[in-house]
Amino acid sequence: MAVAYTQLMKTTEKMETSLASLSPPSVILTQDELKKIAAYKAVEFVESGMVLGLGTGSTARHAVDRIGELLSQGKLKNVVGVPTSKMTHEQALSLGIPLSDLDSHPVIDLAIDGADEVDPDLNLVKGRGGSLLREKMVEGACKKFVVIVDESKMVPHIGGSGLAMPVEVVPFCWKFTAKRLRELFEDCGCVAKLRTCSEKSKKEQPFVTDNGNYIVDLYFKKDIGDLKIASDSILRLAGVVEHGMFLDMATTVIVAGELGVTIKNK
Amino acid sequence: MAVAYTQLMKTTEKMETSLASLSPPSVILTQDELKKIAAYKAVEFVESGMVLGLGTGSTARHAVDRIGELLSQGKLKNVVGVPTSKMTHEQALSLGIPLSDLDSHPVIDLAIDGADEVDPDLNLVKGRGGSLLREKMVEGACKKFVVIVDESKMVPHIGGSGLAMPVEVVPFCWKFTAKRLRELFEDCGCVAKLRTCSEKSKKEQPFVTDNGNYIVDLYFKKDIGDLKIASDSILRLAGVVEHGMFLDMATTVIVAGELGVTIKNK
Repeated sequence: MAVAYTQLMKTTEKMETSLASLSPPSVILTQDELKKIAAYKAVEFVESGMVLGLGTGSTARHAVDRIGELLSQGKLKNVVGVPTSKMTHEQALSLGIPLSDLDSHPVIDLAIDGADEVDPDLNLVKGRGGSLLREKMVEGACKKFVVIVDESKMVPHIGGSGLAMPVEVVPFCWKFTAKRLRELFEDCGCVAKLRTCSEKSKKEQPFVTDNGNYIVDLYFKKDIGDLKIASDSILRLAGVVEHGMFLDMATTVIVAGELGVTIKNK
Repeated sequence: MAVAYTQLMKTTEKMETSLASLSPPSVILTQDELKKIAAYKAVEFVESGMVLGLGTGSTARHAVDRIGELLSQGKLKNVVGVPTSKMTHEQALSLGIPLSDLDSHPVIDLAIDGADEVDPDLNLVKGRGGSLLREKMVEGACKKFVVIVDESKMVPHIGGSGLAMPVEVVPFCWKFTAKRLRELFEDCGCVAKLRTCSEKSKKEQPFVTDNGNYIVDLYFKKDIGDLKIASDSILRLAGVVEHGMFLDMATTVIVAGELGVTIKNK
C-alpha cells in the first residue's frame, strides 16, 4: 500500500494539465488516503509569502498538516494562515503556522478546504463539520479557493447525496425557524432536524457552533431547483445566520478517486 | 397639560376611520406624550383571546403597560404575549401578562411595536434599541402588525433621518464585516460604526444583543435606492445575521403628531 501510494503522489506531482487522470493504482485506497492525495495536490498551489485560508474537517486537516510540514522543512516561507474554526486554529498553532484573521488580512490569496457535496457547476455544500459561517467568511475573501474532496462527494445536484444541507440559526425560537425552513422546501420533501452533539454523554444537547448558534440540518427528497433563489429565500428568514451552500465560490476542485486525481477549474 | 392630554385621548378613542386627524391640542405635547397617544390608540386593536407580539423600546413600552392595565381591569381576557426582547419579557412579566414564544405560538394575531423610521410605503427601520432580530422574527409571524410612532419618525426615504440603520453581525471578525457593509453602500457615502455600550462604565465595550452578537450601525448620505436589492445584498454577506429594514411588514402605522393622530394602512 505504501509503495502504491508513493507512486500515486509522484504521478500527481507530474501533472501539468488542469484536467488529468492517473492510471489506476494497484491497490484499493481508503477514503482517507484519497482525501490526503487531494489535499497534498492542493498544497502544490501554495507559494511562499501567501495569506492562506485554512479549512476545517477531515480532508482540510491533511492540507494544514502538509503546509506545516513544508514550513518546517523550509520549503515554504512567510505564509500566514487564517483558520476557519477554533479546531483548525489549534491544529495550525501546534504545527507552528503563523496565524492571523480577516480583520488584519481582509484579502486572502488562496484557501484550501474540503466540501460535503460538489455539483457539476462546482457549487458546494459545506458545514457538516459545523464551521460553515467562518468558512464562508474566509473563503468569500479569497482570490483562489481550492476545494479538495474524494470522489464520493461529487453529486448530480445539491442535496443529491441525501445527506444534510446545514443551516446555522440563532438559538432563540429555533423550532420556529426550523418549521419555516421546512415549509420553504415543502415541495422538495424537506425534513429539518436540529443537530445534536456527537459525544455520547451530550447526545440530547444541541450542537453549538463556534459562534454560539445551532445548526438545523435540511434533507431534500428532490432537487431544490435554482440555487440562488433557494439561497436568498433561506437568508431572508429572520433567525437564519447562514447556510451551507457555497455558490460560485470554488475556483478549483480537486477530486481524488480510485481512478486518479481530477482537477476541475471554474 | 394633564387636561389637554386626557381630552386628546378621549378624542382618539372616538376615531372610527382608518385615516383621521384630530383638532390641535391646546398645549404642546412632549415626544413621550405623543408616543403614548400612538401606543394607546394601537391597543384599541387588541381583543380578548389574541396572541400578541409585544414590541421593544420607549414607544412600545407604553403599549405593553396599557395591555397590562386593561388585563388587570378585566377589560381584556385570555391574551398571550410574545415578547421581542428580554427587556419586554421582564416588563410584561411584572405586569402579569401571560407569556409564550414563537415555538409554542408560531402564528401571532397582532403585534404592536415602535420604529425608528417609517417611509411613505410603510417600510421601517428598527433596531436602534438593539432588538431587531427578535422583533423581525415575531413581527414576521403576525397577521397584523401595528407600528406606533411620533411624527419625527416619518422620513422621505429609509436612512433619511441621518440616524443609524443597524445590522446585527457575528462578533467573529466584525471589522471585516463592517468593511464589506461599508463597501456595499460606498456610492451612498456609507459610514459603518460598531455600536458600543451606552453605560458610561462600559463605554468602550461593544454593545451585545440578546443573541450574543454585535451591531454595526450604517449611516447613509444618500438614498440607498431599491430596498429589496439592498436587503438581499446585506443578507448575502457571511457574518451578517439580520438588518434593521422591515420591508412590507407593517400593516398599519399610527403616527401621533402635534396636529393629531394619523392612521396609515397598507
